[in-house]
Amino acid sequence: MWQYLPMNVARLLLQIAVILAACRVLHSVLRRMGQPPVIGEIVAGLLLGPSLLGWLAPSWYASLFAPDSLPLLNSLSQVGLVLFMFVVGLRLDLQEVRESRHVAGLAGLLSIIVPFVAGLGLARPLHALVPEAPALLFSLFLAVSMSITAFPVLARILTDQGLTGTRLGQVAITCAALNDLVAWTLLAWISALAQSGGEAASVISTVGLLVGYGVLMIYGVRPAFAWLTHRFQAAGELPVILVMAFLSSWATEKIGIHALFGAFFAGAILPRGKDDASRRRVDEAAAKLEPITMVVLIPLFFAYTGLRTNLSLIGGSEAWVYTLAIIAVAVVGKVGGALLGGTILRFGVRDSLALGVLLNTRGLVELIVLNVGLDLGILSPSLFSMMVLMAVTTTLMAVPGLKIVLRMPSHTGRPVFGVAGQIFGRRESAGQSSSGF
Amino acid sequence: MWQYLPMNVARLLLQIAVILAACRVLHSVLRRMGQPPVIGEIVAGLLLGPSLLGWLAPSWYASLFAPDSLPLLNSLSQVGLVLFMFVVGLRLDLQEVRESRHVAGLAGLLSIIVPFVAGLGLARPLHALVPEAPALLFSLFLAVSMSITAFPVLARILTDQGLTGTRLGQVAITCAALNDLVAWTLLAWISALAQSGGEAASVISTVGLLVGYGVLMIYGVRPAFAWLTHRFQAAGELPVILVMAFLSSWATEKIGIHALFGAFFAGAILPRGKDDASRRRVDEAAAKLEPITMVVLIPLFFAYTGLRTNLSLIGGSEAWVYTLAIIAVAVVGKVGGALLGGTILRFGVRDSLALGVLLNTRGLVELIVLNVGLDLGILSPSLFSMMVLMAVTTTLMAVPGLKIVLRMPSHTGRPVFGVAGQIFGRRESAGQSSSGF
Repeated sequence: MWQYLPMNVARLLLQIAVILAACRVLHSVLRRMGQPPVIGEIVAGLLLGPSLLGWLAPSWYASLFAPDSLPLLNSLSQVGLVLFMFVVGLRLDLQEVRESRHVAGLAGLLSIIVPFVAGLGLARPLHALVPEAPALLFSLFLAVSMSITAFPVLARILTDQGLTGTRLGQVAITCAALNDLVAWTLLAWISALAQSGGEAASVISTVGLLVGYGVLMIYGVRPAFAWLTHRFQAAGELPVILVMAFLSSWATEKIGIHALFGAFFAGAILPRGKDDASRRRVDEAAAKLEPITMVVLIPLFFAYTGLRTNLSLIGGSEAWVYTLAIIAVAVVGKVGGALLGGTILRFGVRDSLALGVLLNTRGLVELIVLNVGLDLGILSPSLFSMMVLMAVTTTLMAVPGLKIVLRMPSHTGRPVFGVAGQIFGRRESAGQSSSGF
Repeated sequence: MWQYLPMNVARLLLQIAVILAACRVLHSVLRRMGQPPVIGEIVAGLLLGPSLLGWLAPSWYASLFAPDSLPLLNSLSQVGLVLFMFVVGLRLDLQEVRESRHVAGLAGLLSIIVPFVAGLGLARPLHALVPEAPALLFSLFLAVSMSITAFPVLARILTDQGLTGTRLGQVAITCAALNDLVAWTLLAWISALAQSGGEAASVISTVGLLVGYGVLMIYGVRPAFAWLTHRFQAAGELPVILVMAFLSSWATEKIGIHALFGAFFAGAILPRGKDDASRRRVDEAAAKLEPITMVVLIPLFFAYTGLRTNLSLIGGSEAWVYTLAIIAVAVVGKVGGALLGGTILRFGVRDSLALGVLLNTRGLVELIVLNVGLDLGILSPSLFSMMVLMAVTTTLMAVPGLKIVLRMPSHTGRPVFGVAGQIFGRRESAGQSSSGF
C-alpha cells in the first residue's frame, strides 16, 4: 500500500487510538470502583505492555508496538511530560505553601524525611539487584523515589472525596506541594551528581551552572516577565509563556539536570500576584495546556512506561519478596512519617492515618522519576518493574484506604505517639484540633 | 555533557522555543500591518529555513535544524495537522452549507472550477519542471492546488474586518467551506489515483475501499456515536472523540488516501443536531484541541515547510517568470471565478471583487496540500518553493486587497458580466441585492 506518512507516524495514529481507547475503558471501570481517573490510565498502560497484551497476543503486540516505533512514542510522551510538569509548576501555589508552612511545614518535611531514610535503609539489600549502579547514587535515588507524593492525583482524590476545604485536605495539599518542590530539587541534585560522575571539579561546575540558572530565572526572567506583562499586557499570552517554558526546560537539560525540572521550575516561578488578573492569567494558561496534555500526551507516557514494565521479569519467590519489601517500606515510611507529623499537629489517630494514606499516593510523579532512573541506568528493568508495581499499589490503596480510615471514630483526640506529641507538640498547641472535618 | 533525553528530543525543546518566539515576533509585526496572525507564522517558518536563517547563519542553522532532528519535527507537525484537520472538520457547519447552498453554491463551485481549469492549463508548460511526475497526476494536482481557499484564514479575516454578519461574509464562508469539502475529496481521489499507479484493478480496489470507508463512517460510526451520546451522555467526551478521529485518520492512510482526509472527515460527520447541547459539545471539543494545536503544533508545521522551501532554488529569470505566472494564474483564476459567481448572485463589481480577494487566500491549507505533493514526488523542491511563494503572496494580498476593493463605490449595482448575469442570474432574482454591507 502507498504510504504518505513515514511508517512510524502512520503507526502512531493507530497507537494513539488504541491507547486512548484502553485508557477510556479502564477509566470507566476503575472510576466505578471509586478510583481517581489517573489509575485507570496507568493500569491501561501496563495492560498494553508485555505484561498482558504482549503475553496474550504477541503478534498483534509486536506489530502495534514494533521496536522502530518506540522512539517516536517516547519523544512525544517526553514533550507531553515537559508540558505536564510546566502545568504542575503553574498550578503550584507557592503563596499557599508559604502561608501554611507553620501548620503543615513540619508534617510535610517529616512525610518526606521518614520515607527517605527508610529508602536509604532499603537501598542496601536492593543494591545487589543493580550492582553496576554507583552505590551513593543508587541509595539517593531509591530514597527519593520512596518519598514521592503525587500532587495531581492527590488533588483529584481530595476533590472527589469532598475534602478540599477541610483542614485535612489543606494540610495534605500543602505537604504534597512541598513534596513536589523537595523531590524535584533532590532529583536535580542527584542528576548533577550522576552527571559529574563524582568528580569534585565536575560536581562544582554543575552545581555552579544550576545555581546560575536558578539566579537567572528568579532574578532575571521572573521580573522581566512581570515587567513585560505590565508594559505590554501581552506577556500572559500562551506563546510567550511557552517560549519561556521550553527554553528553561532545554537549559536544565543542557546543564545536566533533567529537562522536566526546568519545565516545573519555569511554571513555579511564573509571576502571579495577589491580584485576580495575574492569578487568572496563570490559570488560563494552565487550562489551555491541560486538555491535549492530559488526554493525549500523558496516556502515551503511561503506555510507554507500560511497554518498559514487564511483570514477568519479577521471577521467582525471592523477587516477589523484594517487591513486597519495597511496597511495605514505601507504605510504612510514608504513613509513619505522616503519623509522626500528624501527632505534632495534634491530629487524632484517624486524621493522621488519613493524611498518611493520602500522601502515600505516588501515581504519575513516581512513574516519571522511575523512568528517569531506568534511563540513567540506576534501575534495572526488573527493579523498574517492581517499583512500578509499588507505585501502582500505593496509588490504588489511597481511596479504599481513606474510606476505611475515615470510618474510624474521630473522637480519639489522643495523639498517636503520646510522648512524641508532648515533646514536639508544645509549639503547636494554639487550639488546633482535629474537629471540624 | 550528560543527556537524559534522546539528542533529538533535547534539540526539539530548543527548536520549539525558537519557532514559537519567531512566530510571536512576526505575528506582532505583521499584525500591525493588518495581516491575520497566520501570515506572521507562515513568514516566520520561511525565515527560519534555508531562505534566510540558513543563509545568514549557516552554522547556527545547521546545529539547530540538524538533519537527524527533522524526522521528529515532521512527525510532531503531522500529528498537529491531524488534530488541525479534525478541528477544521468540527468547525465546518454542513448545515450552514446546506442551507445557503442555493445562494452561494453556484458561486462557490465557480470559484473552484475556474481556477481548477486555469490550473489544468498552467500544468502543461510547468510539467517540464517535473518531467518524472505522471502527466495526469501532475495536472490534477496543480489544478487542485490552484483552487484551494484557506477556510480558517478566511474566517479570521472576516472576523477582523467585521464582515462576519454581512452577506459578503456569509457567502464567502460558505464558498470556503464548500471549497474545503471539494478540495479534500479531490485530493483523496488524486491520492487514490497516485496510489494505484493508474492500474485499473488497483484504482477500483482503492475506490472501493474509499467508498466502503465513507459508508462505514456515515452509516455506521455516525449513528453509533449519536446513540452513544444519547445513551451514556458520555460520547461527547474528548477521549472518545479523539479515538474516532485517530482511527479514521489511520484508516484513510491505510486505504491509500492521506491521513489528513480521514481526520477532516471524522470532524465533519460528527453528529451535531440542531439542539444547542450537541452543537456546544462539538464546539467545546474544538476549543479544547485548539490551543496546543494552533499555538505549538501548527507553527512546527510552518517551520518544517520553511525548512523545505528554498527560495534560492528559484534561480534564473526563467524560474521567476514561472513563479509570476503561477501567482498570476492563481489570482486571476480565483478572482475570475468569484467575479463570475458574484455576477450570478447579482453582486456589484465591488462585492464580487471582494469575494474574489477573500477566496484567494490560500494560507495554511495550500501549504498542507503542497507538502503532500512534495512527499508524493509530484512537485520538485524548486516548484514546491515557487508554489509556497504563491501561497504566501495570495494570502498576503487578502487584507490590503480587501481594503482597496471596499473603498470602491458600492452603488455600481450593475453585474460585471451583464450577459452572463442575465443568463445565469434569473433563478436568483428573489430580491437579493448587494446593499446592506
